[in-house]
Amino acid sequence: MTSTALRTDRYELTMIDAALRAGAHERPSVFELFARRLPDGRRFGVVAGTGRLLEAIEAFRFGEDELAWLDRERVVSPETLDWLAAYRFRGTIRGYREGELYFPGSPLLVVEAGFAEGVVLETIALSILNYDSAVASAAARMVSAAGGRPLAEMGSRRTGEHSAVAAARAAYIAGFGATSNLEAGRRWGVPTMGTAAHAFTLLFPTEGEAFAAQLAALGPGTTLLVDTYDIRRGVENAVRAAGTGLGAVRIDSGDLDVVVREVRAQLDALGATGTRITVTNDLDEYAIAALAAAPVDSYGVGTALVTGSGSPASGMVYKLVAHQDAGGAWLSVGKTSEGKATVGGRKQPVRALRDGVAVSEDIHVEDPPVDALAADAGRLLHVPLVTDGEVHTAALGPDGVAAARAHHAAAIAELSADGRRLSRGDAAIPTRYL
Amino acid sequence: MTSTALRTDRYELTMIDAALRAGAHERPSVFELFARRLPDGRRFGVVAGTGRLLEAIEAFRFGEDELAWLDRERVVSPETLDWLAAYRFRGTIRGYREGELYFPGSPLLVVEAGFAEGVVLETIALSILNYDSAVASAAARMVSAAGGRPLAEMGSRRTGEHSAVAAARAAYIAGFGATSNLEAGRRWGVPTMGTAAHAFTLLFPTEGEAFAAQLAALGPGTTLLVDTYDIRRGVENAVRAAGTGLGAVRIDSGDLDVVVREVRAQLDALGATGTRITVTNDLDEYAIAALAAAPVDSYGVGTALVTGSGSPASGMVYKLVAHQDAGGAWLSVGKTSEGKATVGGRKQPVRALRDGVAVSEDIHVEDPPVDALAADAGRLLHVPLVTDGEVHTAALGPDGVAAARAHHAAAIAELSADGRRLSRGDAAIPTRYL
Repeated sequence: MTSTALRTDRYELTMIDAALRAGAHERPSVFELFARRLPDGRRFGVVAGTGRLLEAIEAFRFGEDELAWLDRERVVSPETLDWLAAYRFRGTIRGYREGELYFPGSPLLVVEAGFAEGVVLETIALSILNYDSAVASAAARMVSAAGGRPLAEMGSRRTGEHSAVAAARAAYIAGFGATSNLEAGRRWGVPTMGTAAHAFTLLFPTEGEAFAAQLAALGPGTTLLVDTYDIRRGVENAVRAAGTGLGAVRIDSGDLDVVVREVRAQLDALGATGTRITVTNDLDEYAIAALAAAPVDSYGVGTALVTGSGSPASGMVYKLVAHQDAGGAWLSVGKTSEGKATVGGRKQPVRALRDGVAVSEDIHVEDPPVDALAADAGRLLHVPLVTDGEVHTAALGPDGVAAARAHHAAAIAELSADGRRLSRGDAAIPTRYL
Repeated sequence: MTSTALRTDRYELTMIDAALRAGAHERPSVFELFARRLPDGRRFGVVAGTGRLLEAIEAFRFGEDELAWLDRERVVSPETLDWLAAYRFRGTIRGYREGELYFPGSPLLVVEAGFAEGVVLETIALSILNYDSAVASAAARMVSAAGGRPLAEMGSRRTGEHSAVAAARAAYIAGFGATSNLEAGRRWGVPTMGTAAHAFTLLFPTEGEAFAAQLAALGPGTTLLVDTYDIRRGVENAVRAAGTGLGAVRIDSGDLDVVVREVRAQLDALGATGTRITVTNDLDEYAIAALAAAPVDSYGVGTALVTGSGSPASGMVYKLVAHQDAGGAWLSVGKTSEGKATVGGRKQPVRALRDGVAVSEDIHVEDPPVDALAADAGRLLHVPLVTDGEVHTAALGPDGVAAARAHHAAAIAELSADGRRLSRGDAAIPTRYL
């Protein structure tokens, strides 16, 4: 298990250094991870990365190599090095289930621990949740735009090589059906897909020979890429090579709304009525929605998905919201500077429902009243993630991903049709502090 | 060394499978990595990630775990599994130096290898170069906007936890002076910085006590964050606690142009004339430029930097441009479909210069004439990166990063002042195919 401990901003460690010298490092504290607002015009966000974060917390240990480097660079004092050497997170974290929807101010994670123990997780928690949630939030809009047609994530080449794996995972949680990324298949159980690129066609003297070679290896159920030279001839060559039982054709260029109709008509005329059409040309949620009336069978999405479709970072922050004073009394705290005020205190969020439809995000600053959680009134949004340093295993690995995908489907079904629309607007439900 | 081989789109392997069955997998081939265009309105791009890619190529091996998973999932045939088991890249790669500028069509990497050997590197090469170059390209504009004032990269929390390290590295290559990311310090030799967040101030009963604790641990040269409560009182408390020898104050909120002037006047009035002011509030290249006349001493940049300031993926592609036919004759190839045509053939790029100023990106489709490379006429842009499978070590590790940073500084100095301006325009120099 590679240590994740240096994937951390230097100031987390210098704060520990100073707190330790002041004797304040073990002061019981509550940190909260939340987004002040949704990306401009978005109606909801989708939490993703929780399972990855829990694995990163398990691997958050300062080993010999990390300590030697920190020592050599004089980042912290020898006393702090000793403290870091003994570090493992022993606190408690509760938070939104992975796959859950969120709104402005939703307390996505609540971390209870000594100050130093909790503050040191800030950078890694934000890196993972900000990126993964940006992808999941964009993905959910694309799934909504696709209206039930399947989507595949194909953006590995448009984001860092590790983020690519996280993006495939996040998109799957938000309802995509598959990914091109093999590591996401191995690591997280996401179904993988893909057949051939233009390079394969270009390797052979004719398109027909390339198709024949692909069919020989992958069978007639494969997807043939028909736009290397001329789409009309490509479709002709495809059906000639594969027969009318060809699985699918893929189109990666051109004015898709027009081209797809022509290709469908051509396939049908050739008798390939069961051959599907998949399109992959720089799609985002709006382009997908614009193809709703076209005879597209599935979509492959790359750049827009893995870069959050215009909102590549979710804007989540990690803030100290309460701590004990030297006498052991709890204090709610919050920054008061302009435009960035924080609501202090420990929070318990409830998704208030009416007839099964989400109506508000109710954030109780202390425990919610019992009737807020009565059968149809709402549901508690927090689940235990880490208890006294023990990570709850349900959120981990491929099983955690499958659970998050199922939970996302249930949570988004609570949203009104208006709340799911693509057009710009306010958050689908209001956030209320109670 | 963790295998990088599954950070790959599935279709790379199914193409190998089909090519192998057709006996075409070893056909000598040339692949090229390039960007068809710059992000909208940008005048130049900066190549980054080359050193990381070379390390990823060295680790691109299919080990037992990878092969077992591919077998279990029936991704490819048993024959292809054998081929993958024996895979290591034995071809030749030449390309732009890391840190070099690029323009539309610049052939950033030219990969010469058997078809299968070369095609399988597509995904990893694009993941790394697209992301790292997006960050470096944004960073170079920020460095230009800062007009010599130092910049620090602080965006780790706004991008995936591995991309964070790559972003810190890319920003440093493009002229940033430091990063908050500790792993980038350890792994790539980037100087690290950072002192404290608002949480630290909130942990103490008063701001003055928090400052005293920080000063006790980090000394008077530290940077105090003065905007947790009220900036004016924050500055007062800072100088009271540290004395007039305080290193710096940091401001992370408010209307910076106004606030910075007020803080400078206040610091000077208190006698802290040597105390620097650093600002870190959601900056991008335009906000930095807007502060040119304000008494800012340094900038910390986060979100905009690590997300490519509006262009989070560079749009680079990896294309087969030539291969031998079955008889051993070389063929230039290229896709002809609408809007995505590719210029075939092996290329040799030259940055043409006049009086030391770049005037055009000359792409010779065969070897450039000798006079194109005469003393002041231009310089060859390609350097050898991998020769017959042997990676040239000069580009690797922290030394490679230092060399890339130095090369970037030299390359950008060749650009005219007009080519460096922030405002939208065409590429700073035209690309010519000769």
